Amino acid sequence: MNLKQLSQMLQLSQTTVSRALNGYPEVNEDTRRRVADAAKRHGYRPNPSARRLATGKTGMIGYVMPTGATVDIDPHFVEFLSGLGDFARSHELDLVLSPTAADEEETTYRRIVANKQVDAVYVSSPCPADKRLTLLDQLHIPYIVHGRSEGLDFAYPFLDIDNEGAFHEAARLLIQLGHNRIALVNGEDWKTFAIHRERGVRKALNAGGLALPDHRLISNAMTDENGYRATRRLFEQDDKPTAIICSSLFMTLGVMRALRDLNLAVPADVSVIAHDDVFPWLKPENFSVPLTTTRSSIRAAGARVAERLVARLSELEDGARGEVWPVDLVVRGSIAGAPPGA
Amino acid sequence: MNLKQLSQMLQLSQTTVSRALNGYPEVNEDTRRRVADAAKRHGYRPNPSARRLATGKTGMIGYVMPTGATVDIDPHFVEFLSGLGDFARSHELDLVLSPTAADEEETTYRRIVANKQVDAVYVSSPCPADKRLTLLDQLHIPYIVHGRSEGLDFAYPFLDIDNEGAFHEAARLLIQLGHNRIALVNGEDWKTFAIHRERGVRKALNAGGLALPDHRLISNAMTDENGYRATRRLFEQDDKPTAIICSSLFMTLGVMRALRDLNLAVPADVSVIAHDDVFPWLKPENFSVPLTTTRSSIRAAGARVAERLVARLSELEDGARGEVWPVDLVVRGSIAGAPPGA
Repeated sequence: MNLKQLSQMLQLSQTTVSRALNGYPEVNEDTRRRVADAAKRHGYRPNPSARRLATGKTGMIGYVMPTGATVDIDPHFVEFLSGLGDFARSHELDLVLSPTAADEEETTYRRIVANKQVDAVYVSSPCPADKRLTLLDQLHIPYIVHGRSEGLDFAYPFLDIDNEGAFHEAARLLIQLGHNRIALVNGEDWKTFAIHRERGVRKALNAGGLALPDHRLISNAMTDENGYRATRRLFEQDDKPTAIICSSLFMTLGVMRALRDLNLAVPADVSVIAHDDVFPWLKPENFSVPLTTTRSSIRAAGARVAERLVARLSELEDGARGEVWPVDLVVRGSIAGAPPGA
Repeated sequence: MNLKQLSQMLQLSQTTVSRALNGYPEVNEDTRRRVADAAKRHGYRPNPSARRLATGKTGMIGYVMPTGATVDIDPHFVEFLSGLGDFARSHELDLVLSPTAADEEETTYRRIVANKQVDAVYVSSPCPADKRLTLLDQLHIPYIVHGRSEGLDFAYPFLDIDNEGAFHEAARLLIQLGHNRIALVNGEDWKTFAIHRERGVRKALNAGGLALPDHRLISNAMTDENGYRATRRLFEQDDKPTAIICSSLFMTLGVMRALRDLNLAVPADVSVIAHDDVFPWLKPENFSVPLTTTRSSIRAAGARVAERLVARLSELEDGARGEVWPVDLVVRGSIAGAPPGA
């Protein structure tokens, strides 16, 4: 059955049927349901070309992807993409990745908007006063930010996890366990998520009458190697930490290896809490000591961003809605009371 | 400077200038160079829309991406994508990812070809008699396969690494070191790369008068957890291996943890060789014992696939050219002679 036959059967115009199937707001709910039911019953699947003609849309979501010798796209991106794909698939949406040099992002955004290559875009890993958001706000293309910026004078639609709250709770639990020298091994300090995590740790420490001195805060790209180096550096200090909070499971691989090399036992000598984005190929419960984590599925976030982009394209969502997801604190064997005399 | 001005200055038609800048074969080399020099000198950058009109191309490379609850895109994909992006960026090409259910791949390929959404596609992780290649061979769209299939009655363009040779050399080195119970912890056995790796190991073992019994071969998705389980299973046997060859660094994380849990030292009790795709965020030299590896950059492969797709679009490459990259065998501390009495 094609669109014409379906329309005739329902005694509706082809445009109405097409719009009903694509969730346009000008079609009322009764009609929408009647069309959807008939389409399902008769096995009608909209032809994307026809849909695009009817709706003026490309069926594509865009992502401007910084790349180049100095840029490493990290494995978090894969999981986010999996989630985005999970949702996009069921809506026959494609994703367009536009690789760009880091200093040509603006040009690339302008190009994909000018060429009408995509219906909407998403932005990831924002930093404070992120220029990409200022630009998108002017370009009039639907978008959603995965994460948050700070210090902009306009509101924008975003999906973020409660990084500050998660790391606040992690630090608070360690303080309750008697730790007073808590270190933070964080992501790059110019990204908002890392700033929020640091803020959460500081607030908990301040509330407990403690501080986060510079030598107990290390910020860097979240690789295994940087986790190792950070930990070695932390234990070269005179006042060594008794607990480490780490922003990624990858870094934590290096943290744990460094502690082994230093003959320090987890959790007897050092407690460890890591942030877990829920990767299927690297799980906190499988570390040599199962890790206590702040947990939030980055794949679920990808699916939700796709869902909201589709809602925006269908005018079911508008305005600058922000959505902040709470984060689980999952306790496993890697934490204990501060060692006596520490 | 725009295309018209550049053309007038060079006393060439706009079509000729456009084709020269896009590497079309009908423009002779002298003209091509003259146009490229002038464009560079006067800061002319082709407008992609104009380019597309002139060339009939979309400027997009496609990838049909299986997704869904049961499909995990793994981190290898990110590194490949980084490499593809590195090259695509300098040619203002975008990548279109079309998410698909595993059982709807054919429909998705047909859709993107029918809709002329992309100029070319690449295919990854092929299996023997891969239906995607049979389909693409009929659909008349330029494509390149990353990896190889087997048992097809037509030739196709591909880029692969010498998986068989790499794993043959790894096994041969272990045999030379006196090992005669060598285990293989491999990727999923329906993918060609895993079949080739197994074949390489078997050939080396056979040449040394040894065998690979079923209980010393474990094939599965290449996660940390599966590496751990495989190793535990290998050491529940009566004739325990003295060496393990492992198809991925992720799995090797689990292999090494299992060996630690079993109180087995690397390399004194067990030698380990792993395949390294050269991830920036997980390096073999940083494992608790630096790993001997078969090494080939999957990022470089991504860049080369993009380069060859562009060459095919420009008609600088045609036919079913196969390209097989040799693989380095990099010796580090994780291998030693077989333990005495083993």
